[in-house]
Amino acid sequence: MTTPADYRILNEAGLRSYLAGFPAVGARLGGAASTWSIAEVGDGNLNLVFIVKGAKGGLVVKQALPYVRLVGESWPLPLSRSHYECLALRRQGELAPGRVPAVFHQDESLALIVMQLLEPHIIMRKGLIAGTHYPRFVDHISDFLSRTLFLTSDLAVPAAEKKQGIAAFAGNSALCRITEDLIFTDPYRLAEQNRWTSPWLDEAAAGFRRDLEAHLAISRLKLKFLAGPEALIHGDLHTGSIMVTATDSQIIDPEFAFYGPMGFDIGAVLSNLLMAYFAAAGHERTPGARGDFERWLLATVEDVWTAFRRKFLDLWRRQAKGDAYPATLFEGADGAACLEAERDRYMENLFRDTVGFSAAKIIRRIFGLAHNADFETIADAKLRATCEARSLRLARRMLVETAGFPSIGAVTAAARELRDWRPAFA
Amino acid sequence: MTTPADYRILNEAGLRSYLAGFPAVGARLGGAASTWSIAEVGDGNLNLVFIVKGAKGGLVVKQALPYVRLVGESWPLPLSRSHYECLALRRQGELAPGRVPAVFHQDESLALIVMQLLEPHIIMRKGLIAGTHYPRFVDHISDFLSRTLFLTSDLAVPAAEKKQGIAAFAGNSALCRITEDLIFTDPYRLAEQNRWTSPWLDEAAAGFRRDLEAHLAISRLKLKFLAGPEALIHGDLHTGSIMVTATDSQIIDPEFAFYGPMGFDIGAVLSNLLMAYFAAAGHERTPGARGDFERWLLATVEDVWTAFRRKFLDLWRRQAKGDAYPATLFEGADGAACLEAERDRYMENLFRDTVGFSAAKIIRRIFGLAHNADFETIADAKLRATCEARSLRLARRMLVETAGFPSIGAVTAAARELRDWRPAFA
Repeated sequence: MTTPADYRILNEAGLRSYLAGFPAVGARLGGAASTWSIAEVGDGNLNLVFIVKGAKGGLVVKQALPYVRLVGESWPLPLSRSHYECLALRRQGELAPGRVPAVFHQDESLALIVMQLLEPHIIMRKGLIAGTHYPRFVDHISDFLSRTLFLTSDLAVPAAEKKQGIAAFAGNSALCRITEDLIFTDPYRLAEQNRWTSPWLDEAAAGFRRDLEAHLAISRLKLKFLAGPEALIHGDLHTGSIMVTATDSQIIDPEFAFYGPMGFDIGAVLSNLLMAYFAAAGHERTPGARGDFERWLLATVEDVWTAFRRKFLDLWRRQAKGDAYPATLFEGADGAACLEAERDRYMENLFRDTVGFSAAKIIRRIFGLAHNADFETIADAKLRATCEARSLRLARRMLVETAGFPSIGAVTAAARELRDWRPAFA
Repeated sequence: MTTPADYRILNEAGLRSYLAGFPAVGARLGGAASTWSIAEVGDGNLNLVFIVKGAKGGLVVKQALPYVRLVGESWPLPLSRSHYECLALRRQGELAPGRVPAVFHQDESLALIVMQLLEPHIIMRKGLIAGTHYPRFVDHISDFLSRTLFLTSDLAVPAAEKKQGIAAFAGNSALCRITEDLIFTDPYRLAEQNRWTSPWLDEAAAGFRRDLEAHLAISRLKLKFLAGPEALIHGDLHTGSIMVTATDSQIIDPEFAFYGPMGFDIGAVLSNLLMAYFAAAGHERTPGARGDFERWLLATVEDVWTAFRRKFLDLWRRQAKGDAYPATLFEGADGAACLEAERDRYMENLFRDTVGFSAAKIIRRIFGLAHNADFETIADAKLRATCEARSLRLARRMLVETAGFPSIGAVTAAARELRDWRPAFA
């Protein structure tokens, strides 16, 4: 792991003088450099994030640290992730215009990206914990998912270009490794970094560590993650990587990006909505107070998949410029019908992957290192454990009995049934 | 497509003075450079191949041309294929020692490789056309296949290293493109380069061009070829890429190497043995004269798969150093049993791929640009067409009804039944 010779961790003063050296950046901020306000606001696990504001406008500056911020220097992590994040941001910006922040400046030596400040956006997860509906979210996320996934797949891209894309992200393996360990391995074995809501979930955690059916299912998903470069995926598309207002949604933080299985991204979105759903019972002030919100969440789970599926298929019908399924092999009315049936089958396979990856994403948030605020902010530990146990019960079925969920409606129906399920400890 | 500035096509005089500049090469040949015999012997489609002999020993020099030799300058092909061939030869030499020629010298600017002269080896296809048995072949090819495929897969190699491997071969896309077009697309549509034994197979060729079930099946295989980087595959493993004696087998010419589906290599071997089997009836001098040879071929088809499977599984049990199927998730007797069952399932999937790719390899040799000498040397066109039609009948079933071949025995049984089948024209 190499750190560029001129890399240095920037503080506010260092950042001020650095940015002052770039007139185009200064022009966006406006006024003299000395008047800019600079605040470090990073609440993620890995990086420094500064908000810089001037007389005219604001910017975000994200700098990678050579280690995991949450843990410290004992867990080194390559600065090159900033290179891959910037590459992904730019590519996603071309593919899904308006759905990711614009990049204004990049410095590979400093592992730093200067980008658009999203205002008055908040992290979607925070909005969901507060019970806020986002009526435009389905449209925005289904655009992002369908466009970034379809348009980087073999359905849309000639083989040589696709191989170049895979190679361009092949070096981001340290970030992939985090996923391989924390999502696909550690939650199912004794691992120092694991934690869960104890003692309530001790039995469930031990159960997953003994559960060979689950181990097999998670290992098959891991193999797809290792050897299934279907498309350029975001790689970390939870609701903490989405910033929203009532009318806008922006996808941020693609530093885990690489060519992987499409279902991993779609599953990330769906699983985080499902966890928000099961967490809602832990946030309601009076019984049933979040009923509307819960209904909206399950409708959103359904609508995200349905809209994604429709848009992906529309793109396939209109922009199939890749080398897969050559048009000349499916000519005429019969050929068109045959290809259309194959598209359905393709989407069924993708849905199956999505269900499995959704489950994996839920389980890791309950037994693994990285938990999510949806559950963590439920102060009553036993109530939190109850919400988590409901999520786990659904996730275990989705992981092991994936074929039992032939449609997104089957997923939301199962979630609805588990809304008031009480685990033995409750 | 770039040609290095100092690239030049070597003739015998140019090669002599070039080789004289490398004392280590000269030492292998022995004697003065002026005494070396040099003969251009390339009979392949793409490159120049020289045999150089001196007082002490011989060498092979392979030089890539910036176009397809068979076609000429109108079909350019990047010289970089020589780089990938050398990379693959060296890697295969480490993974399967003794099964590929040793590389003594490489010159990237001249797209040239100096390697071990295989003597008294002949191209296996020629031996098979002559009706020769190769009793050691199963052992050798199953070693090569099991070791090169397993040891470059996610079962054996950590994810970061595997991604580097994929990236290292990503630039070989022009060669992959040839396969994508000539194997997975052209035989199923009107294409200028297609040819077949006319008029006998006109109807069959038209049938495959209309056959939407076949188009669907070949397109699914193509997608695996495009987006299934399971292992470093040879990419062109027909019996013209194997040199043999009664006691040795060597695999040559891996210029199509890249990370792709394992079944493509295994299928290449099996399909070429099956074509040798169906061609034998066209080479027999008296009815039944090749009976022993035909039985040996079908036994070899069975034994190649069976030995490959056994060796691959042995490697998996002993050298699973990759990130797939982590050992800590399959501990104890129950875990071991679970993983063993999964290995069986993995091999079933791989067998299904192998059956499909075998079929694809047969069909392309009968309708596509590149035919093989097994059939081409049958002078009687109607008899040739009969042998080809039998192959096609088996291949169409293997392609479209792949699940109908649950074991290698089912494949050889079907081949045996077709031995004397007569198409309508015969």
